[in-house]
Amino acid sequence: MLDVCLLGCGGMMPLPERWLTSLLVRCNGHSLLIDCGEGTQIAMREQRLSFKDIDTICFTHYHADHISGLPGLMLTIGNSERTEPVLLVGPRGLERTVRRFLTVAPELPFPIHLLELGEGVESFQRGELRVTAFPLEHSMPCRGYTLELPRSGRFDPQRAKAANIPVKLWSRLQKGESITEDGRTFTPEMVLGPARRGLKLVYCTDTRPVPEIARQAESADLLVCEGMYGEPEKAKKAAQKKHMTFQEAAVLAAKARPERLWLTHFSPALTQPEAYLPLAQALFPATELGEDGKQITLHFQEERG
Amino acid sequence: MLDVCLLGCGGMMPLPERWLTSLLVRCNGHSLLIDCGEGTQIAMREQRLSFKDIDTICFTHYHADHISGLPGLMLTIGNSERTEPVLLVGPRGLERTVRRFLTVAPELPFPIHLLELGEGVESFQRGELRVTAFPLEHSMPCRGYTLELPRSGRFDPQRAKAANIPVKLWSRLQKGESITEDGRTFTPEMVLGPARRGLKLVYCTDTRPVPEIARQAESADLLVCEGMYGEPEKAKKAAQKKHMTFQEAAVLAAKARPERLWLTHFSPALTQPEAYLPLAQALFPATELGEDGKQITLHFQEERG
Repeated sequence: MLDVCLLGCGGMMPLPERWLTSLLVRCNGHSLLIDCGEGTQIAMREQRLSFKDIDTICFTHYHADHISGLPGLMLTIGNSERTEPVLLVGPRGLERTVRRFLTVAPELPFPIHLLELGEGVESFQRGELRVTAFPLEHSMPCRGYTLELPRSGRFDPQRAKAANIPVKLWSRLQKGESITEDGRTFTPEMVLGPARRGLKLVYCTDTRPVPEIARQAESADLLVCEGMYGEPEKAKKAAQKKHMTFQEAAVLAAKARPERLWLTHFSPALTQPEAYLPLAQALFPATELGEDGKQITLHFQEERG
Repeated sequence: MLDVCLLGCGGMMPLPERWLTSLLVRCNGHSLLIDCGEGTQIAMREQRLSFKDIDTICFTHYHADHISGLPGLMLTIGNSERTEPVLLVGPRGLERTVRRFLTVAPELPFPIHLLELGEGVESFQRGELRVTAFPLEHSMPCRGYTLELPRSGRFDPQRAKAANIPVKLWSRLQKGESITEDGRTFTPEMVLGPARRGLKLVYCTDTRPVPEIARQAESADLLVCEGMYGEPEKAKKAAQKKHMTFQEAAVLAAKARPERLWLTHFSPALTQPEAYLPLAQALFPATELGEDGKQITLHFQEERG
């Protein structure tokens, strides 16, 4: 399962009643954070989330509202007594940007690893999570992120028997272990049926509604997508500023058909986002407004309530 | 008069119920900010203070909790439509540090001026305010700041008459203007008595209790001073970390005799600062605890209620 918390739902600048947009995803004791603007560490503390467990921070891009909380967060992670590495991931410019920010946090008790992304769609593994970064269209290089938790097939005793695998090895194989015994190697695939539907979450800010978002979000459990402007009359401004309206995000979701869409990254001028929610729901009914601290636990399909 | 607002009273990291320590001082439409950690712009917004009026930002030093709010604040000042320059002041390293932080805020609609301080005590003028930076003792170069608003002498009609100054010029001279008329030059000193007591505010974090603080704070209207630790048993830790206990700050105040002492920059572990206030008040009765948004208006002496 994936524990998901939208720490904030604002864009551009933090407000007294609205933290900047960032997402924390927890999976089996590991935490992955996407973006880290000014105040993100305070939002995490409000939700009583662990700083020590953060092992990955992915940046969509390097505008201040997405990264300037980094030095403070890194110091606070250090203060949580983490000693294991933290991986920072982002589009080109990562190393230069991080180095500049961390001059005010020169002594951290954990190593920093960097993964600077290339130009296209690019995947990497973090524990059980498969992370795919994909290009967005903003005023600077920007990436969306797809997080997938795969699920292996069901255990099939018929296959295990047919392959003549000793019964005492079944449960270890079922848990994903490969075992060599008496010169024979047994792999989980030998006892498992076809892979089952896993979990998928897609996150994209800041961007125009590019087709890749819909491709990535196809049958996702959750699409977290920017909607900087609620007002349809701001469509032109959204195009100029390389952002989206609620309706543009809903059109993408209607194509991709995720289980649900969370809108986020609201403009500071958008004080009543709920006024524009129906416009998005008319296009994609499972649209919800993001809000500070909004949480969901995504379960594998059969486990669902 | 000086309008003073302590925006936060925390040290080290921002907390949900405690902003990082910084001070905003307003004087005749000009605002001077001392330090700008993560969240300072949110604290300002909570107090409904103007971003556009900020023309000076003084840094005590470049630890993250004192500067990492800079990029966000500068963007927000830019967004307030300020076009006049903003002066940034701080100890050596200012230019390098500011340049690094502002890579994520590359296009600001106002010029940035820099004043990198030397090693000793150094004064400069900002509008009517005289600002004096003085060295503190911390784990990196660090400065305290004294802000003084001078007050000219009382108008003395006897002197004006004795000097044979035309009556029609009196009020302009009284307001501080120098006037040349019919080949003669008249200056305010010719009609004013001796300068009267002005206003003085001293701010110092992060530091050990060095004697210069007491010298600067002599007969100040307000001393804002760090007290990282309330517990007397943390005196050793305070010495190691180059901070102060409440009692150490109170001893300084007892020497300097300011009108009042505000303690600030509390450790995140100091959840009940009020428990240790009496220990400080025993040494200096006019000790008060800083708190987020604590305000005072300092008036010239005769104007006082």
